[in-house]
Parts: sequence; structure tokens; C-alpha cells
Amino acid sequence: MVLQSEQHSSLLTKPNSANKPIGVFDSGVGGLTVVAALRRHLPNENIIYLGDTARVPYGGKSPETVLRYSKEIANLLLEHNAKMIVIACNTASALALSTLKSIYSIPIHGVIEPGAAAAVRATKKGIIGVIGTRATIASKAYQQAIHHLSPKTDVLSYPCPLLVPLVEEGLFDDEITQRVLERYLEPMLSQGIDTLVLGCTHYPLLKKLISKVIGPNVTLVDSAENCALAVQTLLTTKNLAREKSTPGTLHVLLTDTSEDFLHSAANALKISIDRVSIMTLY
Amino acid sequence: MVLQSEQHSSLLTKPNSANKPIGVFDSGVGGLTVVAALRRHLPNENIIYLGDTARVPYGGKSPETVLRYSKEIANLLLEHNAKMIVIACNTASALALSTLKSIYSIPIHGVIEPGAAAAVRATKKGIIGVIGTRATIASKAYQQAIHHLSPKTDVLSYPCPLLVPLVEEGLFDDEITQRVLERYLEPMLSQGIDTLVLGCTHYPLLKKLISKVIGPNVTLVDSAENCALAVQTLLTTKNLAREKSTPGTLHVLLTDTSEDFLHSAANALKISIDRVSIMTLY
Repeated sequence: MVLQSEQHSSLLTKPNSANKPIGVFDSGVGGLTVVAALRRHLPNENIIYLGDTARVPYGGKSPETVLRYSKEIANLLLEHNAKMIVIACNTASALALSTLKSIYSIPIHGVIEPGAAAAVRATKKGIIGVIGTRATIASKAYQQAIHHLSPKTDVLSYPCPLLVPLVEEGLFDDEITQRVLERYLEPMLSQGIDTLVLGCTHYPLLKKLISKVIGPNVTLVDSAENCALAVQTLLTTKNLAREKSTPGTLHVLLTDTSEDFLHSAANALKISIDRVSIMTLY
Repeated sequence: MVLQSEQHSSLLTKPNSANKPIGVFDSGVGGLTVVAALRRHLPNENIIYLGDTARVPYGGKSPETVLRYSKEIANLLLEHNAKMIVIACNTASALALSTLKSIYSIPIHGVIEPGAAAAVRATKKGIIGVIGTRATIASKAYQQAIHHLSPKTDVLSYPCPLLVPLVEEGLFDDEITQRVLERYLEPMLSQGIDTLVLGCTHYPLLKKLISKVIGPNVTLVDSAENCALAVQTLLTTKNLAREKSTPGTLHVLLTDTSEDFLHSAANALKISIDRVSIMTLY
């Protein structure tokens, strides 16, 4: 009887799934650009963010390795009671989204499809540029997502492996970063792109400098912002939005103790972190 | 009796420890600069090299994480029968050498002490500059090693986190790399260093450009080269040099399948690789 009563009481107080946190992950801290966008659109949601800082970056690693890491992280976010998972990393979205969707029953969202859809809406000339890590560009994930929506659109893509280290060094507005951007972007600009997709969650931190290099006639598409809008729609459609109107919390889990870039990124993005935990994966 | 005879025969044919391979490891492929130096000085030694490409780079990670990774790799090299271990990574040498030495009975050699000794021999003015990753510089390992030999020497050190990504992109002789080097090195040059230690095994690939930036009056100290000389002395002293006079082999183990930089580095360093294996650590 006592046991039954305890079970009953636990059922009564157990939060429904809408009140569970949104799980978000990235190879490192760059995915906080997605958290900042989620925070703007969904201020009351609790968020648990995993940055795999012990193994960052993913962008030069193989599909098998990125998939293995992504599975380990998704399992961990489920253990932390996530109601849905947002892959706030273009490389992991490109290489692991479909497998993770086939394994887990909760909704899983990546950053590529929302970015591709926004780029298709933005382009007038039908020539879209995409920049990302080596692994994201090699996967052709943006190209496929754009062609799925608009088969005749030209997609020019270019790997930009130096941008993540430059962002992680905090060189958001620096002459060296500008030289690197000019080198990466000029070939696409001379081929007439009118829309540029920032296909890496680090890149929104370089928005100001990228706008300076591409000029006013090219539309920038930020995959973080478009991913947050897609998550907002999904939570409403599936009746998964948190019921309480108190501000949501942000719990950051890191796999390594180096927190330098965490705080510089959080400052630049104006997001407040309630708790940071360090843990070892696997 | 059969068992005994098999045991006896196995004892007879078992190679003595001198004929075992030298185990070498690095976070990635940069440590091949040490392999190239070992090959020049010890052409007949078999070498087994582990590049932890699934978790590269180590230079921005915490001491605990770098130590954990280093132990996993040392265990693996011992399973592969290594007669000694060379830590061909300044970050791991700075953070894991003393612990690994306390755990294992075979000789373990890092790159920092040989580089520090060569710098002390080279300096005339007693002002030495050291460049390395964030973790290596924060550890003050070079400073301590130099002061141990020459307490009055001034040591100026500077973290250069963008150099590893620039090397991994193959930008060995590029205007952007030169701009980054000027930014990192000018403060030390203006403070009068006459010797500069390349405190990261990636940096010898930038030797030409670094020489251009520092000019003819500053002596470059390459920790890879000095480490190889120290290993040569150790093998002779401990009677551990391989007996056969046939050319030694090089077996490369990688923890991830991305092999691009492996082959560009091997070409630049003119070393031939006999076998590449991919494996998962832990």
C-alpha cells in the first residue's frame, strides 16, 4: 500500500514532457549561437547544452567518428531527460541527423534544413553560396537540402576551416580574419551569389565582418536563427512548449574544463548561463 | 613436453628488447616532424607512431584531459611492444611526461628538455623566446626546464594557437601565415630575444617563413631535431639500439580516418610510411 501510494504521488508530481528541457549539442561552444536564438524566440524553455570541448573541433574529422560522438551525446541528453534534441552543429547535422532520427523516438532537429529553406526563400537570382567546415561541405548536405526544395538553384560551396579557430581566438573583428574571409569568399562573389548561408554555428559571431566583405547586395542566412524558428514551430505543433511562464534556465555541460571561450562567447551573445558542469563522455 | 618445447622455441625466437619498435605519439600528425628527425639520426629503427586524430588538437585542452589521453596512448604503444616512448607533442610533454615516467618502466622521452637545453646552448644574450600552444605556454614547462639549466636566463613565451590550424591547412608559405607570425613574434623580437624555441611539433613545417620574420640574428631551436639527438644518445647508453642494419619501418596508427594532412606532411618531410592503420582508442 505504501509503495502504491508513493508511486501514485510520484505520478502526480512528475512533470509532463512539455516541462522537460530542450537538449542542444555542438562539438564545442559555437552552438551557443543557436542557444541565443532559441532564448530570443523561446524565453521560457529550459535548455541543457552539451559542448564536446574535449574533442572539439568536429569539422575535419571523419563521418564515422562524428556519428559515434553524436550518438554518445544524444544518449547523455536523453539521460538528462531532454524532450527533444537540437543538433546545434552543422557538421553533426550533416553527418548524424538521419541516423539519430532513426534511433530515437523524441523529435530531433538539425540546423541544415532550416538554413537551406531560408536561403531558397532569400535568393532572387537562384545562386546560393554556402560556407562551412571541411566535413559539412564534403557531405553536400546543404546542396541536397536546397535542391530538394528548388532543383534548379545553383549552389556554390566552399570549406572554410580557418574560421572556427579564428572565432575561438575571439578575433571577431580583426584584420587577419578579414583577409581570410576575403580569400574564402571572393571566388563565390565573383561567380554572382546573391545569398550566403553561414553553414557553421561559429560563423554568426563573424557576421559584422562577413557583411563588410560581401557588401549590401548579398543576403546572409544564419542557420542558428532559422533553426530556432523551426524549433518554435515544432514545439507548438507537437504541444511540447513549456507551460510555465517563468524564464527558462540554461545548464551547460562541457567534456573538458577549458572554459575561456565559453565565457567570451556567452558575453558576445548576451546569454546568461545558470550552471556549468564538467563531465567525461563514454 | 610439447608445451615446454613450444615455450622453449618461443623464447629462442623472441626478439630482444633492442629490436622492438620505438613508440612515438602526438595529438595529430604534427609529431611526424619528430619521426623525420629520428629517421635521419636512426635510419634502422622501427617506429610505431600514434596520431590521435579523432581528438586533435590538444593545445587548447585542460591538463586533466591531455593526461588522460596520453595514458590511453602509452598503454596502447606498450601493447604494440614499444621499447621506449617518445612524446612527440609539446603539450603532452608539458602536461603528462612526469606522470607517464612514474607509471611505466620503459624509458619515456619528451620534446621539452632537449629543446630547452639546445636553447640554453644557443643564446648569447640570455634572452630566449618560446612559442607553443596555449596549454604548453600556460604550463611554463619550457621556462622551468630552461631555468633549471640556467637560472638567470630571461624566458619570454607566447601562445600561438592559430599556427596549428594554418599548418594543418598546408599554408606553410602563405601571406596570411606570415601576417599571423608577425603578430605573434614582433613583441618578443622587440624585447631582444636572440633565440626562439619552436615549442610545438607542427612549427618546423613553418621554419622557412619563421626565419623570414625573425631575420638572421635570431637562432631557431627546433625541439624535434634536439629530441631525436637525445633519443639517439639514450639508445646507445642503454644498449637499446636495434641490431639489424636493414632500414627501419614506419607504422602509423590514427584514431580517425582523415588522412589528408598525413600525406601532405609526409611529403613535406620526405618520410616514407610502410603501413597506416585506423583504430578507436578507449
